Amino acid sequence: MTTRQPDYSTAHELAGRQRDISVSEFFAKNRHLLGFDKPSKALLTTVKEAVDNALDACEEAGILPDIMVELRQLAETRFKVIVRDNGPGIVKKQIPNIFGKLLYGSKFHRLKQQRGQQGIGISAAGMYGQLTTGKPTVIRSRIGARHDAVEVAVRIDTVKNVPVRAREKVLDWNRDHGTEVSIELVGRYQKGKGSVDAYLAQTAIANPHVQLTWQGPSEKEPLVYERATRKLPDPPREIKPHPYGVELGLLMKMMKSTRSTRLSGFLQHDFSRVSSKVAGEICAAADLSPTARVKSLEHKSAEALHKAIATVKIMNPPTNCLSPIGEELLRKGLQKEIGEAEFFVSRTRNPAVYRGNPFQVEVGMALGGSLPADEPARLMRFANRVPLQYQQGGCAITKAVTSVDWKGYSLQQPRGALPVGPVIMMVHIASAWVPFTSESKEAVASYSEILKEIRLALQECGRQMQKYLRRRKRVADEMKKRSYIEKYIPHIGQALRDILELNETKTTRLVTELKDTLERSRKL
Amino acid sequence: MTTRQPDYSTAHELAGRQRDISVSEFFAKNRHLLGFDKPSKALLTTVKEAVDNALDACEEAGILPDIMVELRQLAETRFKVIVRDNGPGIVKKQIPNIFGKLLYGSKFHRLKQQRGQQGIGISAAGMYGQLTTGKPTVIRSRIGARHDAVEVAVRIDTVKNVPVRAREKVLDWNRDHGTEVSIELVGRYQKGKGSVDAYLAQTAIANPHVQLTWQGPSEKEPLVYERATRKLPDPPREIKPHPYGVELGLLMKMMKSTRSTRLSGFLQHDFSRVSSKVAGEICAAADLSPTARVKSLEHKSAEALHKAIATVKIMNPPTNCLSPIGEELLRKGLQKEIGEAEFFVSRTRNPAVYRGNPFQVEVGMALGGSLPADEPARLMRFANRVPLQYQQGGCAITKAVTSVDWKGYSLQQPRGALPVGPVIMMVHIASAWVPFTSESKEAVASYSEILKEIRLALQECGRQMQKYLRRRKRVADEMKKRSYIEKYIPHIGQALRDILELNETKTTRLVTELKDTLERSRKL
Repeated sequence: MTTRQPDYSTAHELAGRQRDISVSEFFAKNRHLLGFDKPSKALLTTVKEAVDNALDACEEAGILPDIMVELRQLAETRFKVIVRDNGPGIVKKQIPNIFGKLLYGSKFHRLKQQRGQQGIGISAAGMYGQLTTGKPTVIRSRIGARHDAVEVAVRIDTVKNVPVRAREKVLDWNRDHGTEVSIELVGRYQKGKGSVDAYLAQTAIANPHVQLTWQGPSEKEPLVYERATRKLPDPPREIKPHPYGVELGLLMKMMKSTRSTRLSGFLQHDFSRVSSKVAGEICAAADLSPTARVKSLEHKSAEALHKAIATVKIMNPPTNCLSPIGEELLRKGLQKEIGEAEFFVSRTRNPAVYRGNPFQVEVGMALGGSLPADEPARLMRFANRVPLQYQQGGCAITKAVTSVDWKGYSLQQPRGALPVGPVIMMVHIASAWVPFTSESKEAVASYSEILKEIRLALQECGRQMQKYLRRRKRVADEMKKRSYIEKYIPHIGQALRDILELNETKTTRLVTELKDTLERSRKL
Repeated sequence: MTTRQPDYSTAHELAGRQRDISVSEFFAKNRHLLGFDKPSKALLTTVKEAVDNALDACEEAGILPDIMVELRQLAETRFKVIVRDNGPGIVKKQIPNIFGKLLYGSKFHRLKQQRGQQGIGISAAGMYGQLTTGKPTVIRSRIGARHDAVEVAVRIDTVKNVPVRAREKVLDWNRDHGTEVSIELVGRYQKGKGSVDAYLAQTAIANPHVQLTWQGPSEKEPLVYERATRKLPDPPREIKPHPYGVELGLLMKMMKSTRSTRLSGFLQHDFSRVSSKVAGEICAAADLSPTARVKSLEHKSAEALHKAIATVKIMNPPTNCLSPIGEELLRKGLQKEIGEAEFFVSRTRNPAVYRGNPFQVEVGMALGGSLPADEPARLMRFANRVPLQYQQGGCAITKAVTSVDWKGYSLQQPRGALPVGPVIMMVHIASAWVPFTSESKEAVASYSEILKEIRLALQECGRQMQKYLRRRKRVADEMKKRSYIEKYIPHIGQALRDILELNETKTTRLVTELKDTLERSRKL
């Protein structure tokens, strides 16, 4: 190394500086990845993570959710977010890990539709609060009438990504079960697009079974979103991975960690949709014995197996891992929350598959009424019933909407943009694994299968919408015609009486007949 | 819980399912966050991570980088990426961690300009290779002529995020020092936008001190980007955090872990730009004694200290943590690689600060020549000398470019879009911490301070560009005029001779005088 100079490092010096980076340090420094880059967004993200968790917990426990969200303003940019649910509560021992450790949770390893999937969100919100105000996250919880309610304050040790219990006490709480989380943070409260208000209003639409109470910082009375149905959504079931979505490396990993001994058993038990017959076909195509010991198979056999899977016809994955809103509730939700529209249409597509993951697309549209006719359509995006508030431009849903030719459905559309017209569009994608474009879960990645399903659902709604828009136009034309008839008929009557020299009675009869004839011709 | 039904879970059942998620599992499932969502992009990302690391290592060791990139096509969608450098090599013991563990490295905790900053990239590339082909990452390395060269094959245990050494041997290698990494992966090779070729060409522009050899999968001969200078960039120095960029929570953490005993010492030693005088001013403003024991200070004192910092005037952070390309090398680099242009301009702004982090913006432009005049300007984006290939739409650089009014600089510009004209724009942001919008480091987040600096640099170049474009227009007009003169003067001469009945000599003299007069009036 002849060019070596002072100020530079040798391999040994470099080695001395290498060390672990904890995932909390990583996200503390990269907090914009989690949605904490601006005070206004940080406030929304915190509310969102807490509400999403509350809803997941209630539904998993089979409880109709009753959620209270409160925002207290402590100083110009300092707030306390409080979210309380009537869910199953959290076992005391688990509270520190759930709220004080990133990448910890019950959802990541399970393939089924859930709002949370990463085990990052609520701990990250607490970490943001701690970084900006120094205050711990305070959790109250009770898991049943025969258990004590507890209050635990948790900090996160970002250097190690482990929770630190700041204090803990038994609480006198007038609730049998549920959880309440409070986070103090630097934030900014504003209404409009991307606000807590918009998020909660849209949550009510996509979750008609939820009772939501919202106490804003400057409102005297809380706003209550009443539930539209008392029926819980069907609980989504956990599924196993589908063979088509499994890459070679993952297959090899599964072969190493399986509890099955024989190849055929492994294929049947560790995957969905593999019957004994299908397992036999796969083994035959790979030229491997169904009774081969899985763990003794080498790299070459794994490659053969992986190639064989692609050649065998296997049923699509089961879709009971999904729990869509459904066409009726979707329409009801829109009708309830968008009073200014007058026509509603909705469509739930059959489930489809991307990279082995089942997903399902739903679209609802609210039309006409007093919605503005000369502005771009409003687009509401949802993933697993959670409204998405940011990064609309980078989302597969937006791409799908702008790629449809809306002129074909009687709407104007600037090139490559949202259509213009009195429309609110709601698109929901439900999946066992939603591919978000970032950890902040604000936009869906553009897998071609997903884009295609969204487009089809939009087009189906588009056709309904077009019928309505055409009828609306016809009615409007008609109203115009009718007003002309009513305006001019008396003058025509007058003129006819003069020309034909009719008396008053005959004139009246003639005018009535004429009006009838004209109105019949309008094909009402 | 009266509504409880079968299929649902109690708090205890939920608790039983809660567990740690390793950061490797997390990114394996969310690989699109790291740039591995499509085979073509995965190929580029792998090359990029390896080359970025090679360049960082060479520069940190004070070695003029000589990098070889080779891509071997093994099957239609299967490739082997090989990147070899003449850097300092890697100490054998560290090889498994560096290539087989996410969130491990020497760069995350140091505030200075580097290409890598996360400790994720190259391990993630190896993990992607392993997931898609089952093959380990193979590393060859030697740290000096008196040491053995070694070859180590590393896998990553994604469940635990720890490296697994697959094999290791001593190697006969004809190099004194350096590192070579080989990754086999499922990929797709294509040229054009977002390709390995484009990335390497742009790397050569932003790193004129680098010798780059590129052996594509179907080329007979490698392509060599010769270095334009033999001078290494000034080595960036590590700096301490600036008080203005430190939030309350981080301040409290620093107060706990400091090696200083007294408050004044803590402020002086743990931050940049805090002299004894400034420390005294901060303490006074916080109403705290400079000799107070730091670790005995409570939350209230920390809050007072945090508020006090904002009220005291403190110098901007030192900027020797940055190493910009510089105006001259920027221009040279563009001239060398963009032969079709004829005018070059560049501008390096003074360093600025966002959230306590120093950063510096540079802009270069190549203009005219045979660049297409009726297409949108080509934009090349760079962060810490690394060309960014994806997510142009979501990048602060693009936002800054489209927000400039280019009509004011003699270019056409559709509303909200890139300007149209014979221009290639290159924007470089150098920072001790580049705020990327995702782990794949493809776009810069839109901090207002960064947007402002980019705009100013663009406008400064814009003014130079305008002068050139105006002159070009004048010359073009002139050429047109000259061609008219040359075409019509003989006819005029003929006409004058007939009218004035001149002889040949007098006509010639008149025509010459006329031509002179006309040409003088052109103000050449």
